Amino acid sequence: PQVEIFGSKPTPVANLIYSEFEPLGQLDRSFILMQGKQGILVVDQHIAHERVLYERFSKAAKNKRVEVQQLLFPLALEFSPGEAELLALHRDRLEELGLELELFGKNEFLLRSVPAILKNNEHAEIMREIVDMLPAQQYEEALQEKFEEILVMMSCRNAIKVNMTLDLDQIRKLISDLEQTEMPYTCPHGRPIALLFEMDSILKKFLRK
Amino acid sequence: PQVEIFGSKPTPVANLIYSEFEPLGQLDRSFILMQGKQGILVVDQHIAHERVLYERFSKAAKNKRVEVQQLLFPLALEFSPGEAELLALHRDRLEELGLELELFGKNEFLLRSVPAILKNNEHAEIMREIVDMLPAQQYEEALQEKFEEILVMMSCRNAIKVNMTLDLDQIRKLISDLEQTEMPYTCPHGRPIALLFEMDSILKKFLRK
Repeated sequence: PQVEIFGSKPTPVANLIYSEFEPLGQLDRSFILMQGKQGILVVDQHIAHERVLYERFSKAAKNKRVEVQQLLFPLALEFSPGEAELLALHRDRLEELGLELELFGKNEFLLRSVPAILKNNEHAEIMREIVDMLPAQQYEEALQEKFEEILVMMSCRNAIKVNMTLDLDQIRKLISDLEQTEMPYTCPHGRPIALLFEMDSILKKFLRK
Repeated sequence: PQVEIFGSKPTPVANLIYSEFEPLGQLDRSFILMQGKQGILVVDQHIAHERVLYERFSKAAKNKRVEVQQLLFPLALEFSPGEAELLALHRDRLEELGLELELFGKNEFLLRSVPAILKNNEHAEIMREIVDMLPAQQYEEALQEKFEEILVMMSCRNAIKVNMTLDLDQIRKLISDLEQTEMPYTCPHGRPIALLFEMDSILKKFLRK
């Protein structure tokens, strides 16, 4: 009856350096547990990978160098007339993201390629989501924002999930990739990537301070 | 600037089962980090070992079966007349703890054996501490209490320290020994052995709940 439970009031902190922590393994196959002089660091594996993929993808899209995977069997997709119009309107831009669409009969398209990071996903489902996100106009600002959202969605789709076993090598690779991103502390949706349990407060609870 | 730090308000909890957690390694070479469905469990390695040694030693003392280590070279120790009197008064009881003392000239004793759990310690120093703890009377109650304190002190002296590297096998052994004690949640001094960071509150901080 005397195990202590830590309540929780999170406070933001700046300048945390991932490489000052040593990965030990996973918590419930969903979070990475690391230790260091500063305390226990918990990293959300899905959110961390999403950040890595998003920045990589976003940079490639800006430089029009998205890695593309040609589909062995092009995927035929049917849309409503309105959707088909939207797709036609944004076709060039989508191609810059790696989504090559070819008009194929009335309101039907062939999806010929996808960005490499999506190669194992449900392409039809993703195309449906994308069509729902496309803006009706060509105003650059709205376009930019909507295509950002599409990038985020595709990064999220492809990121490793929670409830997935990672070995220490995979964990080290992920943390090193994360450390090289420009915003290693929040995912594109704004969720926190890491939580720190501070050594100081752990020592106090053990009456060692 | 968006890493979250956990503040801390510990609350007691009952019925924690160590074997439901999997040890991953050490935090700062001083605490054992374990993970499980319930969250992150942090165990103070020194305090945990102290509890294990104390119960083992205490049980052996009660059954007059303390494992004894004969010293290869008996240790000559000089005391004040008052101290020598105290030692003579409690000699039988000390022998039950494995400390065999032989009167050797005036106010001097030869320490011939120590309890096995003390075999690598500073015996002269420990004997000084013990003399300071001995009660002046033979009242059973005071005696009992003082000898408990001596047991605690000797267990503490022999327990693994913080800042000591343990491998996973040593960690597993310690946790399994700890689990078999009668009071696996506090050390004989009343300090907590384990702290739990609850999964629920971790999930909430990651906005997963």
